[in-house]
Amino acid sequence: MRKVAESTVRRLSLYLRFLEEFAARGVATVSSGELASRGGTTSAQVRKDLSFFGSFGKRGMGYAVPEMVAQLREILGLARRWRVALLGAGKIGSALIEHRGFRERGFDIVAVFDQDPRKIGTAWNGLTVQDEAGLEAALRRAPVEIAILAVPSDAAQGLADRLTGLGIAAILNVAPVQLVVPPHVEVRTVSLAMELEGLSFALTNR
Amino acid sequence: MRKVAESTVRRLSLYLRFLEEFAARGVATVSSGELASRGGTTSAQVRKDLSFFGSFGKRGMGYAVPEMVAQLREILGLARRWRVALLGAGKIGSALIEHRGFRERGFDIVAVFDQDPRKIGTAWNGLTVQDEAGLEAALRRAPVEIAILAVPSDAAQGLADRLTGLGIAAILNVAPVQLVVPPHVEVRTVSLAMELEGLSFALTNR
Repeated sequence: MRKVAESTVRRLSLYLRFLEEFAARGVATVSSGELASRGGTTSAQVRKDLSFFGSFGKRGMGYAVPEMVAQLREILGLARRWRVALLGAGKIGSALIEHRGFRERGFDIVAVFDQDPRKIGTAWNGLTVQDEAGLEAALRRAPVEIAILAVPSDAAQGLADRLTGLGIAAILNVAPVQLVVPPHVEVRTVSLAMELEGLSFALTNR
Repeated sequence: MRKVAESTVRRLSLYLRFLEEFAARGVATVSSGELASRGGTTSAQVRKDLSFFGSFGKRGMGYAVPEMVAQLREILGLARRWRVALLGAGKIGSALIEHRGFRERGFDIVAVFDQDPRKIGTAWNGLTVQDEAGLEAALRRAPVEIAILAVPSDAAQGLADRLTGLGIAAILNVAPVQLVVPPHVEVRTVSLAMELEGLSFALTNR
């Protein structure tokens, strides 16, 4: 498959959400125009985004909603479940683990780690917080495909190295730091503080 | 000023964080190479990013750390404080309001709103949860510059319209939905569930 831009993948996620809503309301077909208006983009962009993945719908007929939901779920890797480890049992981690949306989309947080002795061993939404020192042993025993790094900035790179060493190829990083990882490892960095700075930049420089 | 890409602004935020660490350790100058290696980019990119904003440092001399911290804070709009309203007193909102990092960077959450009668009137980190129905009156009485939308997807657009109507031009949206706003309004959408889908896409399509 051709290289697909992150922005395209993000729009596919948005389209899928709208299509699922349509499906729940029993709508059989949608036009690219309807998808576009909900996705904040143009019909041409919708058609281009979908063209990466073969043919969807017929010209003038719109897209068949249930079929497209199934295809997009397949494309996005959501037709299966993913095992996720959470590193960092702090406030953000806590909000994440209770986030209903993750499980609904197929992401199961199956292990949580921290280095704080006051947290290790405590119960967390049906899980027990494990000692970060035992990360390798624990994840060899019960492997995961995805790790969420919700730790302080200065701890993030070291943990990313250890995760990469374990063969984990997908990291969601919520620390405001750019991780250096081998090319086969996919990292998404999301920092709300940095997004706020993007807004203050925009307000200041207009 | 020329139009600056979001990715550039994000790197400026990263550079600033590194420079602040250097400053705290008493380092007087850094090279573009050092900044680049910490920012996961190249020296050429660092120089290009900074060139948007006039001259920093002298060729071969490196960048003067404290001066550059001050300039980057000015550029990013962090040389002042911002008043922020939080809409949605749920789990994510709760993690946000207790997030030390926001206040440290100059973002003060000064008001919190929800529509759940069980939450309205309760205390929240020194604030009282206000009724979303009274949003306009409350924000006219005590204006804010930035709003964080931490509400369910189907409520996000309606609230964005009301915020825009109040003249708020900067919205951080954590609902997995693309908001439609007038061109002068800056929106950053951050959805951890969507980032996870980006990772499952990458794991599935490689």
